[in-house]
Formats: sequence, C-alpha cells, structure tokens
Amino acid sequence: MFQERLMRIAELSRISGVPVPSIKYYLRAGLLPPGARTAPNQADYSEIHVHRLRLIRALIDVGNLSIAAVGDVLTAMDRPQSDLNESLGFALAATMPPQVAEDDDDIRTARQAVAELVERRGWQVPEGSPKLDSLAAALAVFFRLGQDDVADLVEMYADLAQQLGPKEIDWVVRRGDGDTDTVVEGAIIGTFIGGAVFNALRVIVHEDISRRTLAGRPAGLPRAES
Amino acid sequence: MFQERLMRIAELSRISGVPVPSIKYYLRAGLLPPGARTAPNQADYSEIHVHRLRLIRALIDVGNLSIAAVGDVLTAMDRPQSDLNESLGFALAATMPPQVAEDDDDIRTARQAVAELVERRGWQVPEGSPKLDSLAAALAVFFRLGQDDVADLVEMYADLAQQLGPKEIDWVVRRGDGDTDTVVEGAIIGTFIGGAVFNALRVIVHEDISRRTLAGRPAGLPRAES
Repeated sequence: MFQERLMRIAELSRISGVPVPSIKYYLRAGLLPPGARTAPNQADYSEIHVHRLRLIRALIDVGNLSIAAVGDVLTAMDRPQSDLNESLGFALAATMPPQVAEDDDDIRTARQAVAELVERRGWQVPEGSPKLDSLAAALAVFFRLGQDDVADLVEMYADLAQQLGPKEIDWVVRRGDGDTDTVVEGAIIGTFIGGAVFNALRVIVHEDISRRTLAGRPAGLPRAES
Repeated sequence: MFQERLMRIAELSRISGVPVPSIKYYLRAGLLPPGARTAPNQADYSEIHVHRLRLIRALIDVGNLSIAAVGDVLTAMDRPQSDLNESLGFALAATMPPQVAEDDDDIRTARQAVAELVERRGWQVPEGSPKLDSLAAALAVFFRLGQDDVADLVEMYADLAQQLGPKEIDWVVRRGDGDTDTVVEGAIIGTFIGGAVFNALRVIVHEDISRRTLAGRPAGLPRAES
C-alpha cells in the first residue's frame, strides 16, 4: 500500500505536522506502532506512520474523540476478523462508549421507544447493543429537558439515516476495493469525518434558513410561518 | 416558566443526579447562576437550577462538549439579542470552535470546494464564518487521508441537510412558542442532542446493512453488489 521511504522522528513530525512530543506520546500509548530501531535511541519511521498519524489527528481534532477512544478504535481496527461484517462491527462498536445507565423513568421510556423503533423498522441490531444504548441515552435527554413530543423528529432522523446508510456503506466498500484494512479504515473515517462534514453542513443550512426567515423578527415571535 | 420551589444544594444534587462537588465546580465556573444566599455558607436553589444542570450534563455527556464549550454556549444563550436570527446565531456560533488553520494545500482545496458549494446552493452564510471553516477542516481530512473523490458524498450530505434543516428550525421555533429563551435553548438542544440522536441512528442503520449484506463475505471482497 505504501512505498518504503524511511525517516527519522523529526522528519515524521515535519511531514505529518504533528509535534515530536505528541508523536512520542502516541508511541507510548500504543496508538502508533514503533519504528524500526536503528540505534539504542533512534528509530526509522515510514509512510505507514505518516498515514496513521494523520488518522489519529483527524479522529481527535475533527472527530472529537478522546485519546482513549482513538486507542480503542485503532486496536479494534488492527484486530483480524473472520468477515467484513465483523471487521466493521468491532471497529465501530469501539467508538460507542458504554452509557452510564441512570435507571430512571426517562431512560426506561427512551429504551422502550428505541426497542419499538427498531422492531417497527426491522433493523437487525441485537438487543443490548451499545449503539441502541447511545440512542436511548440521547433520547432520554429530550425527555429529561421536558421535550416529550420528539416522536416526529426521531422518525424524520430515522428516514434520513435509512436514505443515507446504503450510500455511505457503498462508498466505504468501493473505496476499500478488496482490501479489508482499507474498508475498515474507511468505515472509521466515514463515521467520524463524514459525520463531522454532515454536522457542519447542517448548521450552515440552519444559519441560511435563520437569516432568510427569522432576521428582523422580534425575539418573541408567535410561531414560524414556513 | 418554573414554580418557585426552593432547595438546598444537597436536594439540588439529589433531584438533578449531579454530585455536589460538580455543582460547586459549575457554580465557580459560572455555568450555573448562584443561588439566593440565606446564610454566609448557605444558599437556596430553584427549579431553574435543576433545569440548567440537566442542560449542562446533556451537553457534556451526550453532546460531547467540553466544559469550556458549554460555558461559551450558555454565555451566548443568556445574552439578549435584537432579533431571533441574532439570538440563534450567537448561541450556535459559540459551539463552533475556531479551527487551527494549517495553511496547506489540503485546507486550501477544501476552502475552495466549500466556497463553491455555498455559491452553488445559494446559502446565505458570510465568508469567514467559523461554520464554513469547520466544514473545510473536516473536508481537508478526507484529502489528507488520500480521499479525493468525496464530491458525491458531500453533495449527498448537503441534499440531506437541506431536507432536514427547515423541519428542524420549524421544530425549534414551534417548541419555543413565543419565548426567545426557549427558542434559543431548543436550538442548542436540537443541534447537539438532535445531532447525537441522528448519529446513533446512522450507525444503527450501518450495522443493520452490514449484517444483511456483508456478513459471511470474506474480508477481502472485490466490490459491493448492492
């Protein structure tokens, strides 16, 4: 996949734009594989390290992941699996931190709503998946803040997710073109960086709509006409 | 908006589920307005504090914001503006951290692509908006990782954002029903918690598709048929 072009840590830092102390930190934390040792205190790095450093920085800076979460994702990504579904599943499961389950009415109502949604849409996701917990946790926040009428909003998001999903998976599989590592890396990039692109577009569209329809309206307006 | 029901910090902690040391930290950081002092070392808190604590925890736990970002959002939210567009604009601008602009080829190409997209779609967003910077930064990651063919993906995300946007803004304005504070709070909740709901749905749909179409395929498959 990469040409073997060897370099010292200073050049690795220059090419990747990542400061040397950060590189050393990622090496110690196991995010970056060690270089080929050439002397007791010296190692050579390759294009693989440049690429991996870019991925780490992308997940931290744009994907908004913690160092620990990046470690989990990369560990899962590097673990060989029996088929593509498992490879993708392990890599992405690592990106869903287990939710602190305060077992109150809001979270119970949310879990019920999620179970019904999954049932109704026929989604093949096992009960107890951390992804369903993440959804329930986010939904419970609406309830906790007094927003009980989010059913329409959730259905709309679900419709869009179903429109988007096959195209995103197709992009990832095509991009990988037969190489599992590349497919799995694409899934990680697609999930986090694609997610960041979509979120940025979403708030840009909000600003556009707000400027066109809400500017000049007094703060306390009765209702949107649009 | 809230009944005046006064309570000590221990009860505030019990009702909100937020530990007392965290409440004290939020008070010191200015995220939570001070209670009504009843003695040199004692204060009374109200339902307003319960609600604000829930919002703070939601933004941190589910919205994945830092304490500093939550502070910026709440400060912007509490600042009176002349019209609704401004109120929303200030609150949401606070949620877009300025991007570290490494001025390399990738970020320049990404900025150009963003400018063309905004022009083509006729979006009314001022040049130099941090939202456009965020989009360019996310897009530049694709280029930096060797993914130059993301134009279709971005157009698809833009189409969906345009489908979603008017419905989301409508939800926020209806929910506010004439009260600016509630509209602005709704925009914050919608952006972060709605965003978390959508992202969770997106990965659930990915898992469903992966299980149905990729399970049993060897890791190195030539191409997706779907």
